[in-house]
Amino acid sequence: MTQEAGGLFGGVFARGAAAAEVGDAAWLRALLDAEAALARAQASVGLIGRGDAEAIAAACVPGRFDPDRIGAAAAGGGNPVIPLVKELTAAVSGDAARHVHKGATSQDIMDTAAMLVSRRACAAVLADAAALTDGLADLAGAHRDTAMAGRTLLQQALPTTFGVVAAGWLHALDGAAARLAEVAEGRLAAQLGGAAGTLASLGDSGPDVVAAYARELGLAEPVLPWHTDRGRVAELAGALGGMCGAVGKAARDVTLLAQTEVGEVSEQGGPGSGGSSTLPHKRNPVAAVSALACAERAPGLVGTLLGAMVQEHQRAAGSWHAEWLPLTELLRATGSAVAWLGASVERLRVDAARMRANLDLTGGLLLAERVTTALAPELGRMRAHELVKAACAQAVDSGGDLADVLARHLEGRRSPEEVAGLLDPAGYLGSAGAFVDRALAAHRSGGRP
Amino acid sequence: MTQEAGGLFGGVFARGAAAAEVGDAAWLRALLDAEAALARAQASVGLIGRGDAEAIAAACVPGRFDPDRIGAAAAGGGNPVIPLVKELTAAVSGDAARHVHKGATSQDIMDTAAMLVSRRACAAVLADAAALTDGLADLAGAHRDTAMAGRTLLQQALPTTFGVVAAGWLHALDGAAARLAEVAEGRLAAQLGGAAGTLASLGDSGPDVVAAYARELGLAEPVLPWHTDRGRVAELAGALGGMCGAVGKAARDVTLLAQTEVGEVSEQGGPGSGGSSTLPHKRNPVAAVSALACAERAPGLVGTLLGAMVQEHQRAAGSWHAEWLPLTELLRATGSAVAWLGASVERLRVDAARMRANLDLTGGLLLAERVTTALAPELGRMRAHELVKAACAQAVDSGGDLADVLARHLEGRRSPEEVAGLLDPAGYLGSAGAFVDRALAAHRSGGRP
Amino acid sequence: MTQEAGGLFGGVFARGAAAAEVGDAAWLRALLDAEAALARAQASVGLIGRGDAEAIAAACVPGRFDPDRIGAAAAGGGNPVIPLVKELTAAVSGDAARHVHKGATSQDIMDTAAMLVSRRACAAVLADAAALTDGLADLAGAHRDTAMAGRTLLQQALPTTFGVVAAGWLHALDGAAARLAEVAEGRLAAQLGGAAGTLASLGDSGPDVVAAYARELGLAEPVLPWHTDRGRVAELAGALGGMCGAVGKAARDVTLLAQTEVGEVSEQGGPGSGGSSTLPHKRNPVAAVSALACAERAPGLVGTLLGAMVQEHQRAAGSWHAEWLPLTELLRATGSAVAWLGASVERLRVDAARMRANLDLTGGLLLAERVTTALAPELGRMRAHELVKAACAQAVDSGGDLADVLARHLEGRRSPEEVAGLLDPAGYLGSAGAFVDRALAAHRSGGRP
Amino acid sequence: MTQEAGGLFGGVFARGAAAAEVGDAAWLRALLDAEAALARAQASVGLIGRGDAEAIAAACVPGRFDPDRIGAAAAGGGNPVIPLVKELTAAVSGDAARHVHKGATSQDIMDTAAMLVSRRACAAVLADAAALTDGLADLAGAHRDTAMAGRTLLQQALPTTFGVVAAGWLHALDGAAARLAEVAEGRLAAQLGGAAGTLASLGDSGPDVVAAYARELGLAEPVLPWHTDRGRVAELAGALGGMCGAVGKAARDVTLLAQTEVGEVSEQGGPGSGGSSTLPHKRNPVAAVSALACAERAPGLVGTLLGAMVQEHQRAAGSWHAEWLPLTELLRATGSAVAWLGASVERLRVDAARMRANLDLTGGLLLAERVTTALAPELGRMRAHELVKAACAQAVDSGGDLADVLARHLEGRRSPEEVAGLLDPAGYLGSAGAFVDRALAAHRSGGRP
Repeated sequence: MTQEAGGLFGGVFARGAAAAEVGDAAWLRALLDAEAALARAQASVGLIGRGDAEAIAAACVPGRFDPDRIGAAAAGGGNPVIPLVKELTAAVSGDAARHVHKGATSQDIMDTAAMLVSRRACAAVLADAAALTDGLADLAGAHRDTAMAGRTLLQQALPTTFGVVAAGWLHALDGAAARLAEVAEGRLAAQLGGAAGTLASLGDSGPDVVAAYARELGLAEPVLPWHTDRGRVAELAGALGGMCGAVGKAARDVTLLAQTEVGEVSEQGGPGSGGSSTLPHKRNPVAAVSALACAERAPGLVGTLLGAMVQEHQRAAGSWHAEWLPLTELLRATGSAVAWLGASVERLRVDAARMRANLDLTGGLLLAERVTTALAPELGRMRAHELVKAACAQAVDSGGDLADVLARHLEGRRSPEEVAGLLDPAGYLGSAGAFVDRALAAHRSGGRP
Repeated sequence: MTQEAGGLFGGVFARGAAAAEVGDAAWLRALLDAEAALARAQASVGLIGRGDAEAIAAACVPGRFDPDRIGAAAAGGGNPVIPLVKELTAAVSGDAARHVHKGATSQDIMDTAAMLVSRRACAAVLADAAALTDGLADLAGAHRDTAMAGRTLLQQALPTTFGVVAAGWLHALDGAAARLAEVAEGRLAAQLGGAAGTLASLGDSGPDVVAAYARELGLAEPVLPWHTDRGRVAELAGALGGMCGAVGKAARDVTLLAQTEVGEVSEQGGPGSGGSSTLPHKRNPVAAVSALACAERAPGLVGTLLGAMVQEHQRAAGSWHAEWLPLTELLRATGSAVAWLGASVERLRVDAARMRANLDLTGGLLLAERVTTALAPELGRMRAHELVKAACAQAVDSGGDLADVLARHLEGRRSPEEVAGLLDPAGYLGSAGAFVDRALAAHRSGGRP
Repeated sequence: MTQEAGGLFGGVFARGAAAAEVGDAAWLRALLDAEAALARAQASVGLIGRGDAEAIAAACVPGRFDPDRIGAAAAGGGNPVIPLVKELTAAVSGDAARHVHKGATSQDIMDTAAMLVSRRACAAVLADAAALTDGLADLAGAHRDTAMAGRTLLQQALPTTFGVVAAGWLHALDGAAARLAEVAEGRLAAQLGGAAGTLASLGDSGPDVVAAYARELGLAEPVLPWHTDRGRVAELAGALGGMCGAVGKAARDVTLLAQTEVGEVSEQGGPGSGGSSTLPHKRNPVAAVSALACAERAPGLVGTLLGAMVQEHQRAAGSWHAEWLPLTELLRATGSAVAWLGASVERLRVDAARMRANLDLTGGLLLAERVTTALAPELGRMRAHELVKAACAQAVDSGGDLADVLARHLEGRRSPEEVAGLLDPAGYLGSAGAFVDRALAAHRSGGRP
Repeated sequence: MTQEAGGLFGGVFARGAAAAEVGDAAWLRALLDAEAALARAQASVGLIGRGDAEAIAAACVPGRFDPDRIGAAAAGGGNPVIPLVKELTAAVSGDAARHVHKGATSQDIMDTAAMLVSRRACAAVLADAAALTDGLADLAGAHRDTAMAGRTLLQQALPTTFGVVAAGWLHALDGAAARLAEVAEGRLAAQLGGAAGTLASLGDSGPDVVAAYARELGLAEPVLPWHTDRGRVAELAGALGGMCGAVGKAARDVTLLAQTEVGEVSEQGGPGSGGSSTLPHKRNPVAAVSALACAERAPGLVGTLLGAMVQEHQRAAGSWHAEWLPLTELLRATGSAVAWLGASVERLRVDAARMRANLDLTGGLLLAERVTTALAPELGRMRAHELVKAACAQAVDSGGDLADVLARHLEGRRSPEEVAGLLDPAGYLGSAGAFVDRALAAHRSGGRP
C-alpha cells in the first residue's frame, strides 16, 4: 500500500524525488534508524555498553526485514513496531539483544520514524521546489515586460505582464517552500517517552537519553514527549497543504492559458506531447493537469490529520494510527505535485504574440479606464466618464475598434496617434515590472518572503 | 501504491475481503473487462465481427500485463489506459487488433473499471458487514435484558441494557449497509461516450452500443455519458463514509466500555490478546482501535471526492484523475473498518456482572428520577422533587447509599424493600427490550431500515 | 450566527428559498413544533390529557421566545432546549405546565427540530432546483442541435452540441435532486428516546408515543432512538454535498464558456450586469461565480458531519453539538448554490455564432479523426492515418486550413465539397441529439435518473 | 449570518473575546479602516490631498452603514465592497468623494479587511489562550507530583502524574499559540493591487502607496499583490486548526477523566454545574464538551480554505468569495474553543484521592514491569520475567493483590515492605516531574516551544 513508487497509478501520483522517501523501504529504514539511535543514546549516557549499542545498530539493516511479513504481523498488536522489534531482537547476537528497544514504546519508534521520513521527504520536495522556482524565476525575468491580459473572474480586466503572472506563481511557491523548510528543519522532533510518557524505566536519565537520541537523529529535542500532542504533525500537514495550494494555483493557470481559445502557453516536448494522432490539434498540458490532480488530494488529507489531533490520554485509541497513511500520502502527493509543476514549467512554451493578440480582442476596451483618467483633468471626471462610456458602447455595438470611435469623439483634442498611445496596453502596466523585480529579489535572497 | 494488500501498513489498513478487490490486479482486471465488454458490445450490434470481439476478449488476460510498466508509461498521457490499450492492441493477433478500444476514450475505460472495482469491493464489504451484523444481532439478543448504565456526555445517566446498545450498533450498520447496497446495485453505471461524449465515431449506434456494453458488464445503463457528472461517485463516497461512521461509533463504544475503569467488555482471543508481558494487566482492544483508525480516514476522502465533482467541460483537467486514489482508499478503508469491527465483535467478552456493579457505583442516584415520579401522585410533584433532591444531596455528602437515606425519609410511606425496588435498575428499563426486538426484526427482514 | 438571511454576506451566501428555513426563527419554530407534537402524542395514547396537550401546543408560539436570550442561556447546559423548556413551562398556564417536555431529553427535541428544519429547507431547495432544471431543459431543447466545441482537459477535442452540454448539467442536477428528495422524504425521522434512549419514564408506552409523535410531525418513525446513530444526518449531508457538486460543475462551465476569449455564453440582465463603467467590456458572470462560491463550502461541511458520526455511548460529548452549525450552513449553502445557478441560467444568453466560430478556430483539425475513418476503407487504416497526419502537420505549420491542404492531398479521390463535408462539425455529432432527448425524457418522467 | 455574537447557537459557539471581532460590525469596521488607510496612504505620497484623505477617513464610521442593506446590495456584483464604496462615496462631502477607493479593486479592500479582522480576532484568541495556559501552568505546578494512571488505548498502562498530563495540555497549547502569534504578527499583510494586480492607475507610485497603506494599517507589506496567492490565508487556517486540535485533545481528556467510573476531575461552579435535578448524580463537563464541539469544526473549515487556494488568474471566479465565511467561522470556532477550555480549566476540581484509588484498581499489576527490572540483575532477565508473569497471572485469576502474591513468591529475597515499595506507583514516575518543570519553564520563557 505504501510500496515504493510504482504500480498502476505510480506514474501519475508518485513522481519526483519525494516518492522514494515515503515507501515501505524508507519507513523501514527510518524505524531501524530510530532503534539504532536509541541504543546509541543509551550508551552515550552509560545505560548500556557501547559494544551492545553498536551490535544493535549493526543489525538495523533494512534489507534484513521484509515489510510484507512485518506488516502482516502488525495486525496482532496494531502496529508494525512490535513485530519489527521481535525480529530485530532475534537478529542481534548475544547479550546486546536484551537492550533492543529498551525503555521505548512502539509509538516512540513509529513517531520518530514518521519524523525521519518526513524530514527526508521534505528535503526531496524542497529540492524539487528549488528547481521549479528557479525555472519560474527565469520565466518571470525573461517575460518581465511581455504584456498580456489580466483576467478577473475569467474575464479580461486590464493589461498585465506574463512576468508578473510568473512572479506571482514564484512568490507563492517561495513562500510555501520557506514555510515547509521552517517546519522540516525546526519542528520535526524525536519522540521518546516510554510506555506512559514518563520514561519510567530509565530512572533519572530520561531527559539525557532524549537529548542524545535527538542528537543522534538530527531531530529537534522535544521539551516533553508528544505522544498525544500532535501539533508537529499538524504544522507539517499545514505546510504541505499550503505547498499543494500554491502548486495548484499555478497549474490551474497553465491549463487555462493553454486553452485552445487562449493559446498563450503550451507544454512542449513532454512524452506524447505531440498530441494524439486522432486529435492532432490537441496539446494536452499533461504535466499541469497531473500537478492539479496531485494537489487536489491535500485538503482532505490535511483535514484528516487535523481531525486526528484529538487523542486520548497518553496514547490514542485509533487517531494515532490514523495518521500513518494520510501523512505518507500527503508527503507523496506534495512531492508529486511539485515535480509535475516543475515538468510543466520546463516544457512551457510562451506565445507572446498570442498574448498580444488576445489583448487586442476587445478592441481597446480594456484601456477605457485609462482614457477616462487621462481626460478627466481637462473635461472633468464626470464628462470624461460619459464620453468614454458612450464611445465604448458605440464600439461594442458597431463591432468597431475603440481607437477609431474615440479618435472621432476626440477630434481636435487628441490626435489619432495620441489616442492609439492611450490605448496601448504596454503603456498601462503600472508597477508590473517593479513587482517582478521585487519577487525575483526575494527569490534570490532565499529568505522567508 | 495501490498494490495488493500487503506492505508495512497492510496488516492494519488492508484487512477483510475488500482489500483484494481494490489492488492493482483488481484494477487491471476491471480495465480489461471493460475493453472486452466494449468489443463484445460492438459485435452484438454488428459494428465489428464476433470473431474479432472474441479475439480481443481473449487477449484481456490480466496476467499478461505488468501494472508497474503500464503505470510508469501512464505518466506520458496522464492515465494508464493509453499504455494499456497500446499493449492490448499488440497482444491481439491479426485484424481484430484495429478494433481494440474502438470508439472509446480513456475515461470510458477508467470510469467503467472504477465502477467494476467499486461493485466488487462493495460486495466484499457487504459480505463482511453481513457477518458483522449477524454477530451483533446474536449479541443484542443474548443481552436483551442485561442491565448496564446508559451514559450521556460520558456520565452515567439512567440504566439501559447492553442489548439495546448492541442493537443500536446493529441498526446503524444495517442502515449503512442498506444504503451501500442501494448504491452498489443501482447507481454504478457503465461509462461510454467517446472523445467528447457524443460517441461520434459510432455513428447512430451509440445508444445501442452503450446498452449492450452495460449488459455485458452487469452495470447500469446511463441515460447519457457521465464523464463530468460525478454524482455516482459522490453517492458511492457518501455511502462508504456513512458505513465508516457507523463502524466508528460502535468501535469507539467498545474502546470506552473496555477501559480499565469500566471493564464491561474486552476483546479476547485475538492475536496477542493475552496482553503484553511487560504490561500484563492490559487488554488492548486492538480490533476496535484498528477499526477506528480505518474509519477515521473516511471524512477526508469523501470530502476530496465531493470537491472533485466540479469538473470542466467534457473532461476535467485534474479533478477526474484526482478521484482514483481516494476512491480506492475509501473502499479499502471501509472494508478494513468493517472487517476489524467484525473481529472485535467476534472477540468480545461481555462482563454482565461488571455492568451491574458499575450501575451501583452511584449508589442509586441513577434512579432518582424514578423515585420522584413514583412519589409525585401522593406528595405532589414539587414536594416529591424536593424530598428526593434532599435525599440525594445527603447521600452524596455522606457518601452513603441513596436507598438507606431514602428509606429513612420515607419511613411510614414505603418499606425499605419498596425503596430498594424503586432503585432497582432492572425495573426501570422502559422500552429497551422492545427496541431490541424491533432492531432484530428489522435486521431479519433484511430491508432498508 | 444563524440569523435570518441578512448581514454583510447574506446577499451572496443566503440566497433562494432555503435561507429563510434555516435561520433562528425557523429553528425556534421547529423546536416548538417538536414540543407541541410531543404533548399531543402523549395525549393521543392517554398519558396526559388532551386539554393539557393543547394548552402546551398553544404556548408553542415562536414569537414569544427570544433566540438571543435563549441562545445566551444555552451556555449553561450546552444546548438551547434547556432554557427553551424552562421558558415554555413558564408560558403554559396551570397544571398542563408539568407535562411540558415530559419524558423527553434535550436531544430528542434538538434532533427532531433538526429534521424539521432539514425537511423544510430541502423542500425549498428542491423547489428552486425544479425551476432551475426546467430552465435547463428548455435550454437543452432549444439548443439540441447547436454545434460547439467539446473540450477535454480544456482543449478542444471534437464537436458536441450546447444541447448535450446543458442536458448534462440538467441530468446531473436531476439526479442530485432525486437523491435529495429520497432522503428528505424517507430518511428524516422523529427522535424520541428520553434521557438514556429507553423512554423509561413512559413505562410501556414508549413505542406508541414515538409512533404518534412521528405522525404528528410528518416525519418517519424510527425503529429505535438514534441519538448516537447519525446515519440520517450523514445521508442528508451526502445528498446536499452531491447537489452542490452538480451545481458547481455547471457553474464552472458557465464561467469557462463566458471567458472573454471563448464568449459562448454570458449572463445578461442581472443587477449590474451591464458591466462596470471603468471596465465596460466586462460581463462578470456574477451568478455563476456566486454559485461556485456557495457550492465550494460543501465538501468541508460534509466532512465535518461525517467526522461527527463517531459519537459516544448514549449521547456524545461534543460531536452531537458539533452538527448544528455545519448542518445549518450546508442547507443554506446548498439552497444558495441552487438559487444562484438558477439566476445564472435565467440570465444566460447563448451565442451560437461564437460557438460555431470557435469550432472553426482549429481550421478543421477537430475533424481529423473523422477523415481518417472515412478514408480507411479505401486506403487501409494505416495509410489513411499517415495521410491525414501529414495533412494536419502541414496545416498547422502553414497556418492554413486543413480543408485546403486535404483537398490537395485527396485530389482525384474527393472533391473539395466532399472534403468540406467531412470537415463539417455539424455532421459529426454522433448521438448528441439522442442523448439530449433521453435526458429530457428522464427529466419529464420525474423519476430517479 | 455573521451577526454579532448571539442567536440561538451563540451561547455555545460564539464564546470568548474573539466572537465580537468577527461579526458584521467588526467586518464593516475593517472594510472602512482599509478605505481610510488607502486615502491616507495616497495622501502620504502626494497622490491626493491630505484634506481629501481626512475627509474620506472621517466618513469611515461603521455606524453610518447598515450591514443588512450593504449585504443585500452585494448580490449585484458579488461582494459587499461595491455597495459600500457607493455609500461611502455618497457620504464624503465635496471633491474628496472622487478619491474614495481610488486605484483599488474590491478585493483589495475585502482582503485587507479579512487580515484586519483576523489580526484582531487572533489577538483576542491569544489573550484567552494566555489566560488558559496560565491556568494550566498553575494546575501542572500544583499537581506536579500527584500520581495517577497513565492510559494508552484507554487502558491503564503505567503511573504518571496529573502534573505531566496538565503540562502536556499546556505545552501543546503554548505551541499552538506561538504558531498562531507568528502568523498573526508576521504573515497578515495589506492587499493592494488594483483591478489586475498592477496598480496601473497609480502610475509609478504603486509600491510607495502599498508601503504607506500597510504602515497605516499595521499590517505587513507584501512583496507583490497576493490576490490569487492565498498562502497567508492557508497559514492562518493551519495555525487556527492547530489550536483547535490542541484544545480538543485537552477537552477530550477532561471528559474522559470526568467519567462517572473514572471521576478524577469534575467541572465545578459553572452555571447549572450542580447537575440536573432529575439526574442529581450527573456532573456534565459542559465547558469541555462545548470546547470539543467548537474544535471539531476546524478540520472541515481548514480543508475548505486549503481547497480554495486554487484560484484563477488575477481574481478567482468563486474560490476567493468562498473564503469569507469559513475564515470567519474558523476564527470564531477557535476563539470559542479556547474560551470554553479556559472555563473548563477554571472550573476544574481535581480529585487526587480518586486518582490514587484508580491506580490501585489493578492491584499492583501496573508496576509489573518495574518488578521485573528490579529482579533481573539477580535472577536473570528471563527468570525474572517468568516469575513476575506467573505472579501476575495468579493475582488476576485469584482476584488478589499482586503484592501478596509476589511477597509469597519472593519470600527470602524481598520483604513484604520491599515488595510494597516496588509496587508503589509514586516511586515509578521516571522523569514526570522533570518534564513538568521543563514545560513550565518553556511556558514562562514565552518563546516558541
